Amino acid sequence: MKMSNNNNDDNKEYNDKSQNMMTIKGIISLIMSQIDSKKKENVISLGMGDPTAYNCFTTSNVAEKAVVDALSTAFFNGYAPTVGLPKTRLAIAEYLSRDLPYKLAMDDVFVTSGCTNAIDIALTMVAKPGANVLIPKPGFPIYELCASFRQIEVKHYNLVPDKAWEIDLNMVESLVDEKTAAIVVINPGNPCGNVYSYHHLLQIAETAKKLGILVIADEVYGHLVFGKNKFVAMGTFGSIAPVMTLGSLSKRWLVPGWRLGWLAMTDPNCLFKQPKFMERLKKYFDIYGGPPTFIQAAVPEILEKTDDAFFKKTINILKKTSDLCYESINKIHCLNCPLKPEGSMSVMVKLDLSVLRDITDNLDFCFKLAKEESVVILPGVAVGMKDWLRVTFAVDPASLEEALQRIDSFCQRHASHEQEAFEVMAPSLPSYR
Amino acid sequence: MKMSNNNNDDNKEYNDKSQNMMTIKGIISLIMSQIDSKKKENVISLGMGDPTAYNCFTTSNVAEKAVVDALSTAFFNGYAPTVGLPKTRLAIAEYLSRDLPYKLAMDDVFVTSGCTNAIDIALTMVAKPGANVLIPKPGFPIYELCASFRQIEVKHYNLVPDKAWEIDLNMVESLVDEKTAAIVVINPGNPCGNVYSYHHLLQIAETAKKLGILVIADEVYGHLVFGKNKFVAMGTFGSIAPVMTLGSLSKRWLVPGWRLGWLAMTDPNCLFKQPKFMERLKKYFDIYGGPPTFIQAAVPEILEKTDDAFFKKTINILKKTSDLCYESINKIHCLNCPLKPEGSMSVMVKLDLSVLRDITDNLDFCFKLAKEESVVILPGVAVGMKDWLRVTFAVDPASLEEALQRIDSFCQRHASHEQEAFEVMAPSLPSYR
Repeated sequence: MKMSNNNNDDNKEYNDKSQNMMTIKGIISLIMSQIDSKKKENVISLGMGDPTAYNCFTTSNVAEKAVVDALSTAFFNGYAPTVGLPKTRLAIAEYLSRDLPYKLAMDDVFVTSGCTNAIDIALTMVAKPGANVLIPKPGFPIYELCASFRQIEVKHYNLVPDKAWEIDLNMVESLVDEKTAAIVVINPGNPCGNVYSYHHLLQIAETAKKLGILVIADEVYGHLVFGKNKFVAMGTFGSIAPVMTLGSLSKRWLVPGWRLGWLAMTDPNCLFKQPKFMERLKKYFDIYGGPPTFIQAAVPEILEKTDDAFFKKTINILKKTSDLCYESINKIHCLNCPLKPEGSMSVMVKLDLSVLRDITDNLDFCFKLAKEESVVILPGVAVGMKDWLRVTFAVDPASLEEALQRIDSFCQRHASHEQEAFEVMAPSLPSYR
Repeated sequence: MKMSNNNNDDNKEYNDKSQNMMTIKGIISLIMSQIDSKKKENVISLGMGDPTAYNCFTTSNVAEKAVVDALSTAFFNGYAPTVGLPKTRLAIAEYLSRDLPYKLAMDDVFVTSGCTNAIDIALTMVAKPGANVLIPKPGFPIYELCASFRQIEVKHYNLVPDKAWEIDLNMVESLVDEKTAAIVVINPGNPCGNVYSYHHLLQIAETAKKLGILVIADEVYGHLVFGKNKFVAMGTFGSIAPVMTLGSLSKRWLVPGWRLGWLAMTDPNCLFKQPKFMERLKKYFDIYGGPPTFIQAAVPEILEKTDDAFFKKTINILKKTSDLCYESINKIHCLNCPLKPEGSMSVMVKLDLSVLRDITDNLDFCFKLAKEESVVILPGVAVGMKDWLRVTFAVDPASLEEALQRIDSFCQRHASHEQEAFEVMAPSLPSYR
């Protein structure tokens, strides 16, 4: 088989991009492979946003029971409509409408196999091959990977660390061209732990309106907030610019392995939600088939009946671990957290290589840390920022404390000599922290 | 957003194809909409290959218990590797190896969200945009739909009704060009109910070898056979031509809604399974995320522990209903089944419009049948053959009998006048059937 025209040369280039790209899972398993097998039991991972390894992050009984009950009826072993069971779509529409100034209808909601699947569907449906989408830097690498497989170009806009990781909207305006289809906004923010204010989200919507592009709002961490800003759904501004909202049970219900997500058209003025687009979107779901019917059937019960106490428990732990993370990291001389995390499960940490003796870059830092201390964290390069690290704090408090101590030891051991000299003196200096 | 180069014009054409395309589910729901709501309770559907609506087709207790047990441990609420849990991949490798002259390794198997997802992944990975794949006519429309969304061209080869729906291999040879990537072979056959002999599968492999193309073997109905030919896995001939085998729990375990499938490289000589391809394939799974972890965790138990009696029960019912279907249909003057079904859950039936008075085509037949008799069958045009019908016999025997009687009444009522005159005389003629 031989490819001939320019189109295919273009594709070749895109495909090569995917070959050079690593996912978070890929990098984490490479880092894991550095750890001596004898030390495996001792490993603490602050690498992945999957808290289910810890007992303190167990899903609610309501959710588990709802799935078992649905399965046990034997009514849900057959195919569901590929866009989702009607009662599931309706329940998600009602759940999302609680955060909106208008009501979503069943037909606005599509059930997906987790948020990853929603990302793929959103990108593929809004951008044709050759078009581009704007995605945040730092961001979530599945966006780049999807785009590369679908021959969509990616343009990165910056999140500004000194402005609580707000979007550099001037940069957004400068990046847009006639082939730009959408801007991806991740809020609450992964990997930065930021939560955008009502005002900033309004600015984003107004910018999107001005530029004539759609907003893809990744709210997989929706409601997982514990700082001064409340969670505001991007769809709130759907009447200014059309919004496609992505989400899932994964994070709030602590069940990333259940693969139950959604894509909702939060576009009350039907600016984007036109019959032809919706027809094509519906058809696209036919080649996915949707998540298991019995899990879908459990969703109404899960969304309606989960106790507030369950959510509060998670928030309280995340508040505690994020505070611990922020404070401990800012005591380590080579690390700095510009923003105290207010949401999601991770935070970006600036790495100052100049005060380290023998660490060449963020990858080297993470590889050596894994080898010497059996602690796994994600090098910033995986999310687009090479002098940074991403630390996940969705870990039980005792393990997190232990991991942070090990990181501290590691950094002290690798401190440059000037720094060591300073630290020898340091204990006798009064502390003003 | 504006598209400019030739590439995008091509894509536009492909996208338009998808817009004109109807899936089986789409056509069935259109036909369903013809039925008066007062008659809905009386509907018998021979339209979809989803037998779970009938009590006689309930999944095994082993399977249901395995899933509940896996969920209840709370060990499987987190992410699995996107290619699947190692123990799941291993169990599927062992299951498939039972039918092969060689052993598959864990790394040969990828866990998918049902067979539909496996089809999409197989097509997207073997054929780049602009390449083509050969697919059977009649066939399964998801192939066309996937191809159209992935900018892959489809070329149809014929299955020959008078040769037990064997593949017209001369036609296959004449269709292949330098852009042909693969031939799709569906066995046991949907929609024809055929089961290919060892000899014919060998011929297919040799043809693929000669043409230098891959075989995509859709074995979603694997082991669901009840005629003279045993089920032979296409991978048996993997050392002649490389084979990618697709399958799922859906049909044999009667759980299409569980969305648990697989894609296996049955390519013992690594003709296609080269490191670069496998690397790209693995990465592609990252944008899907895989089926729910707890369902994956149940798969080893399901594959190893399901009682033979469970499989035999299904086969016995399908044997009975397929015989009933074949015999009753061949007694109806305007219908003809060229092959007694030997596998899968459906059969193709030739429609003789010349002996009907007021039926214009296969769609008209199905719409009027639904309206007048509340029986749903699939017009052949949905699977690529417009003078035909597809009848699913995975229905409980009493409902099937009732449906076939209603089809008979319908056909008699719509018989042309000559035929009516003949039928008035017919009762007095001796029957030699």
